[in-house]
Amino acid sequence: MKWKDWVHVTKLDPDKQLGPGDIDAIAASGTDALMLSGTLNVTKENLLALQKMIAQYDLPLVMEPAGPEAVLMEGIEYVFVPSVLNTTDVQWIVGKHRSWVQQQDGKIPWDMVVPEAYIVLNPASSVGRVTKAVCDLKPAEVAAYTEVADRYFHFPIVYIEYSGTYGAPAVVKAAAEAIDHAILYYGGGINSAEKAAEMGKYADTIVVGNAVYDQGASVLKATVDAVQ
Amino acid sequence: MKWKDWVHVTKLDPDKQLGPGDIDAIAASGTDALMLSGTLNVTKENLLALQKMIAQYDLPLVMEPAGPEAVLMEGIEYVFVPSVLNTTDVQWIVGKHRSWVQQQDGKIPWDMVVPEAYIVLNPASSVGRVTKAVCDLKPAEVAAYTEVADRYFHFPIVYIEYSGTYGAPAVVKAAAEAIDHAILYYGGGINSAEKAAEMGKYADTIVVGNAVYDQGASVLKATVDAVQ
Repeated sequence: MKWKDWVHVTKLDPDKQLGPGDIDAIAASGTDALMLSGTLNVTKENLLALQKMIAQYDLPLVMEPAGPEAVLMEGIEYVFVPSVLNTTDVQWIVGKHRSWVQQQDGKIPWDMVVPEAYIVLNPASSVGRVTKAVCDLKPAEVAAYTEVADRYFHFPIVYIEYSGTYGAPAVVKAAAEAIDHAILYYGGGINSAEKAAEMGKYADTIVVGNAVYDQGASVLKATVDAVQ
Repeated sequence: MKWKDWVHVTKLDPDKQLGPGDIDAIAASGTDALMLSGTLNVTKENLLALQKMIAQYDLPLVMEPAGPEAVLMEGIEYVFVPSVLNTTDVQWIVGKHRSWVQQQDGKIPWDMVVPEAYIVLNPASSVGRVTKAVCDLKPAEVAAYTEVADRYFHFPIVYIEYSGTYGAPAVVKAAAEAIDHAILYYGGGINSAEKAAEMGKYADTIVVGNAVYDQGASVLKATVDAVQ
């Protein structure tokens, strides 16, 4: 199954704790892929620990680095590399990317790299604070960012990120209507079948993250069933 | 002739004066296309005046807008839309683009739009000052920006812009070596066959602009002959 066909992705944070039972439940939920991500304190060490824990399951593994220092290639199927379009700090659009490319000195396996255009919409989240995102956007503004990401920058993924809180369906709908080629991701606050189904109407792929830690991994299956 | 095959482009500034003899010389030089551009004081009015002056010649016309307020579509073959990767101000990477798209409300003819990744390297130039570009870059840094533009953002054009001054061939060579798919543009200080040939070794397309105003349009033919 190619990444473009995924409808449900589970986002794991290497900085948070999961029990062995959680890992079983995640693997059994039917989620299409696991994404290793996290804004704060992502290190090579905790990434490796998490990778080891999930290695026995046959699920595509995506790495989503928070910065050039935490890009891990071995055992990873894809590297999803975000660029935050609605930041005020160029580092998060192109600066860290330039550093990473320079550091790697011609050795980046671009076939594995999937660029993501992030539109970050929760100012209180880690990603909102760290990236200094301008989150107070109307649906028409999010739609315009989406069209720029899709048609001007040719991002294969546009990612509406409400990290930690459930977003406005009208915003995700506006983004969906503005998109032509890209795959639309939605992430943030999905902790029930109802919310999964609602955002799944507009987004091609929904991402469930915090709910796994807050409510236990058993919540995953309901969100998978709602969109698959 | 498709834009990707152009080797020589003449950049005209709607804010500067050309005589009728200059227009004849430009048209006779063999240049592949005319680009209407300019960082300061580009208005719909002076653009229209320039467009009218060159309308009788059978040359592809490209518009390169400095901002959302000066995008002109009629009689234009392509709109080359820059994004300045080495700026410190997000407006020049994605902000003005978002405003433009929102203003146009779904009416942008994306088939005509060719995105350009600018790397601005003359801090004293108008474009360098206006975009707050970080111009003090080593060849390896320019190469890294080029690779990001080409492989991450999928820009069809990477544009090394020394606007008004002749650049370092080593920098343009480094960019050329870092490129995989994109077409490499070089612009800045080309006012002789020698300089055209030198930058033409590395760049796919050279752009001649100020020389037309500073030395008269007769200088163009030598620069065309050097790369065609």
